[in-house]
Amino acid sequence: MASSAKITPVILSGGSGTRLWPMSRAECPKQFLALTAPQTMFSLTLSRTEDPIRFERPIIVAGAAHIDLIDSQLAGRDAILIVEPAARNTAPAIALAALAADGAILVMPSDHVIADVAAFMAAIDVAMPLVDDGWLVTFGISPDSAQTGYGYIQTGEQLARGVHQVARFVEKPDMARAQTMIEAGDHVWNGGIFLFRADAYLSALSTHVPEILSAVEQSMSLAVRTDNQIFPSADAFAGCPSNSIDYAVMEKADRVAVVPVSMGWSDIGSWDALYDLGAKDAAGNVSAPDAMIIDSHNSLIRSDGIRISVAGVSDLIIIASGNDVMIVPRGQSQAVKSIVEAQKAQDAG
Amino acid sequence: MASSAKITPVILSGGSGTRLWPMSRAECPKQFLALTAPQTMFSLTLSRTEDPIRFERPIIVAGAAHIDLIDSQLAGRDAILIVEPAARNTAPAIALAALAADGAILVMPSDHVIADVAAFMAAIDVAMPLVDDGWLVTFGISPDSAQTGYGYIQTGEQLARGVHQVARFVEKPDMARAQTMIEAGDHVWNGGIFLFRADAYLSALSTHVPEILSAVEQSMSLAVRTDNQIFPSADAFAGCPSNSIDYAVMEKADRVAVVPVSMGWSDIGSWDALYDLGAKDAAGNVSAPDAMIIDSHNSLIRSDGIRISVAGVSDLIIIASGNDVMIVPRGQSQAVKSIVEAQKAQDAG
Repeated sequence: MASSAKITPVILSGGSGTRLWPMSRAECPKQFLALTAPQTMFSLTLSRTEDPIRFERPIIVAGAAHIDLIDSQLAGRDAILIVEPAARNTAPAIALAALAADGAILVMPSDHVIADVAAFMAAIDVAMPLVDDGWLVTFGISPDSAQTGYGYIQTGEQLARGVHQVARFVEKPDMARAQTMIEAGDHVWNGGIFLFRADAYLSALSTHVPEILSAVEQSMSLAVRTDNQIFPSADAFAGCPSNSIDYAVMEKADRVAVVPVSMGWSDIGSWDALYDLGAKDAAGNVSAPDAMIIDSHNSLIRSDGIRISVAGVSDLIIIASGNDVMIVPRGQSQAVKSIVEAQKAQDAG
Repeated sequence: MASSAKITPVILSGGSGTRLWPMSRAECPKQFLALTAPQTMFSLTLSRTEDPIRFERPIIVAGAAHIDLIDSQLAGRDAILIVEPAARNTAPAIALAALAADGAILVMPSDHVIADVAAFMAAIDVAMPLVDDGWLVTFGISPDSAQTGYGYIQTGEQLARGVHQVARFVEKPDMARAQTMIEAGDHVWNGGIFLFRADAYLSALSTHVPEILSAVEQSMSLAVRTDNQIFPSADAFAGCPSNSIDYAVMEKADRVAVVPVSMGWSDIGSWDALYDLGAKDAAGNVSAPDAMIIDSHNSLIRSDGIRISVAGVSDLIIIASGNDVMIVPRGQSQAVKSIVEAQKAQDAG
């Protein structure tokens, strides 16, 4: 390891995305689903931080609705749970954790796939000297194709072997821009995984978004604490601006570095992405063994209870969860969004 | 009416078909489903026999598993229920009813659509003089297209206005033969609806399949009876050969007549047939209002509980019932058979 001090993992579990509806729901969002393995995404994320030589006990930042889920998925592992009083995006959530940690913190979403953990750990090692020196480091995913669903980071001057200054952050592009960036070869995907000293992050907050820092500091100073849970004051947190770490800090701070890494990463941002990741049978289907599949091809078929039977279909995404079943063509899983919105309108009407 | 004596309706409810799986199941077969209207097929069949001037109280022949369903769907209507001790196909089932009736009996499956009941009643009136004279009458459905799913009847010599002697019965044909018959213009579909005097039917049984008549007579002579239920002896019925009225009687007897009729008939033999019958929305979908349908076309979407959401799909049959959802392409609903068979094999294995 490049540094003798241990790193505190910070696992952000604030998401309540619906891109994987009907399985992902507000009461059980994506990170608590077992999508790629028998373990949930949260458990897999937690398991990457198990090395006691490298890591302190993790800090988990999550909403109150998920305390029980997290307790059960911790499965006895020692961790600190910070209960977000309200959803205020990542900049405040990470600030809560930074105020509860010393030294370097490794900030990770709880719902990403990292197939090559060794590559991830090697990238951390590469980053640590600059982290110790006060740089804010983000990990840039080496892209394997032009994608419009991710933000991009242009790599600039090399700071050390495998570490570059960030030239610029790029919003999710259209396909033409994405292709241009991939062809240029000096852009990586913004994976939302960060490594920096807690004090360096808080100092950057103080410079660029002091209103976030002061709200979070006040909320933490009034927090209710148990041995392993911290409940920041909701009243103090209520006035905190909502902003992402990218907008609020990374795009503004001076000493921001990126470590490009190829580590089998995916944010599983859609059912199509899960199909692409999944193990295919001889007919190109990704499915659980309890589905009844006859003469059907290249489809994603998943259920947590309802029995799905298909015959003669191809290129469908069929997802059953609870009392819902959703069917969309493969390649069009962004249609989930319109279904969820239509249902909200229906429920409201 | 052509005859002064009333007709006893005989409703056969012995079917346990799976062509409409997952809604139709052994414990609740097709006749007890509301497929084309808020009423079940059984209720609709029963309601066609409500005219007290024309009809005696109906006789229903059904299996023991469905006594409660029938009781509830009778909704207080006076009827006699004969409980089949075992499934032995239609010839014995009708014989049970013939032994409990006097005069003419109108034998009807409980799971057919007849949209134009007035045309049906008119066909009955046309048939009655020959029925009174001892003929066995079947109603031939005027075909609107070449179909391979039905048996055919070739009409012969005209016996009276609208009534022909049967020239021959034809098994379910291949498409070429079906087209030839339709082009010939003298073939009708065998709809499985019959009208004859009970004693004429029993006499034909005695001539052509005496072993069926003797088994049924013995079973009925030992029957347990209540005011409106008859439980024929299971022991005596056990030895009865299993055979259809077509094979056992109609194809063998001498005085067999057919009344061609166009009455909006369907046996709803598949989900495709139900799609064809159903009211289409502007996008060509046949669906219940609780389905969430976005940008989807020409599909049949039904559920008795599970919420179905689709976006961007076309020409699918999506049926949810109980804990099952089935998806097959429209036009391929015969694939239900292979699904049901595969599930039986799975359950057995």
